[in-house]
Amino acid sequence: MEILIVKSGGFCFGVKRAVDKALEISQRYNNQKIYTIGHIIHNNDIVKKLKEKNIEPVDIKDINRIKDSVVILRSHGVEKHIIETLTENNNIIIDAICPFVKKIHNIVKKLVKEKYFIIIVGDNNHPEVKAIYSFTEPKSSLIISSPKSKELKEFLKMNKKKIGVVAQTTQDYKNFSSICNKLLKLKSEIRIFNTICDATSKRQKETLNVAKKVDIMIVIGGKHSANTTRLKELSLKHLDDVFHIENKNELQKEWFKNKKIAGITAGASTPQFVIDDVVQAIKMF
Amino acid sequence: MEILIVKSGGFCFGVKRAVDKALEISQRYNNQKIYTIGHIIHNNDIVKKLKEKNIEPVDIKDINRIKDSVVILRSHGVEKHIIETLTENNNIIIDAICPFVKKIHNIVKKLVKEKYFIIIVGDNNHPEVKAIYSFTEPKSSLIISSPKSKELKEFLKMNKKKIGVVAQTTQDYKNFSSICNKLLKLKSEIRIFNTICDATSKRQKETLNVAKKVDIMIVIGGKHSANTTRLKELSLKHLDDVFHIENKNELQKEWFKNKKIAGITAGASTPQFVIDDVVQAIKMF
Repeated sequence: MEILIVKSGGFCFGVKRAVDKALEISQRYNNQKIYTIGHIIHNNDIVKKLKEKNIEPVDIKDINRIKDSVVILRSHGVEKHIIETLTENNNIIIDAICPFVKKIHNIVKKLVKEKYFIIIVGDNNHPEVKAIYSFTEPKSSLIISSPKSKELKEFLKMNKKKIGVVAQTTQDYKNFSSICNKLLKLKSEIRIFNTICDATSKRQKETLNVAKKVDIMIVIGGKHSANTTRLKELSLKHLDDVFHIENKNELQKEWFKNKKIAGITAGASTPQFVIDDVVQAIKMF
Repeated sequence: MEILIVKSGGFCFGVKRAVDKALEISQRYNNQKIYTIGHIIHNNDIVKKLKEKNIEPVDIKDINRIKDSVVILRSHGVEKHIIETLTENNNIIIDAICPFVKKIHNIVKKLVKEKYFIIIVGDNNHPEVKAIYSFTEPKSSLIISSPKSKELKEFLKMNKKKIGVVAQTTQDYKNFSSICNKLLKLKSEIRIFNTICDATSKRQKETLNVAKKVDIMIVIGGKHSANTTRLKELSLKHLDDVFHIENKNELQKEWFKNKKIAGITAGASTPQFVIDDVVQAIKMF
């Protein structure tokens, strides 16, 4: 079985940085209990590994329980009110937010100050988007997921004079530019920040290229990870045999029957060792 | 012969305002010699009418001759260095620049102050664009006429961090949005001001609608007027018999042979009396 691996698959810069930071902090505090707000990344294997080091995720609803502790802010950001609660409760806050996400927070804060209406192009329920949104004024901001969304249609009638636009780092460029295009028709000032992360588009492009050349595609990443799901969707444009798994244990030998070339890609939260394990397992089939 | 007239054809708000202002000033100064920088609008009939009132256009190369006089700044704006020369030469300057064009000057001045690289979407040789350009820093601004232009290709490689975009008021929206789309791909801040004038798009839309329904289309306006030429191009999408004239004297009876419905549209600089004359003449055929 020939295997083609998407080189830009797996941990992006921000995720690698956050995990490294968590491990470094754990060591600095002699493996005492350390908390992360939600899962530090969307990957169960890494979450398990971190638990072994006494680094434990806390659900947002339980945030008030965390007092006088060390808390790590995850790579995709944390909502403003959570940071405030953590601060009030005398925690030591370690900021492991991806610098590219942090840049969006700073842009949004500046736009709020300068009285722009803010459009966040992204998925309503994604923690990165929720965190960005938390730095805006709710009456002067909107999350738009698609150029066809009702929210956008309603917004276009509102005739806002100054509009600032940012994007979730993992947004699809075409979706982003279609939404910007609709806004351009307004006789308003549209201040656009293309904050889509290169890592994502690079990974998506390379995934498409590999998908063209293979008989079967394995997409590795958390089942709830938006950027991994997107890799699956893109692969399906070129072939039907696309399987989304979290790790080698989900692989099924019969998928590979009569296949000659397998492609492997992985979402931003997939650690290298998980990818390596999958490659090894396929080689054994 | 049935005649369909494009209602939004002819003088736009800014042009009507400039001509009215010129006539008002002429009266205030008891018909003494008054100058306009170049032709106040692109219409020979109006220029002739103004000459009768002692309102005379001055070529830019002769600008130094004008001293201690009353000078009217035309609707589509005047280059910065010309205003400076006029001021130095002790002239009384009457500003008849269209408020929508003036707004672009103000946007551009603000963007220069805030250190944006400025893109003017428009035609290099149009006086409105030349005037806008004169308020920018030459090393930090560019006039882009088409999404396929060499200048745009070169610019995209320059990797500027803060880019401001304005449009010539008479720009075609599709051309403007195509250029903005190319810019959006950059990882930069793109601050877009859609300064295209509604009068233009309304006139273009209505012209297309009328062109669909007629056998012959008469487009009235200065032969050098970009917005009139655009009306001709749009009409040609729906029929072949499209004639661009400046006034009724250019009409030819044989054009209307075997035609049942004639459409009439007119550029932003065409006065109402010229349109009325053409309609009357066609009715007589």
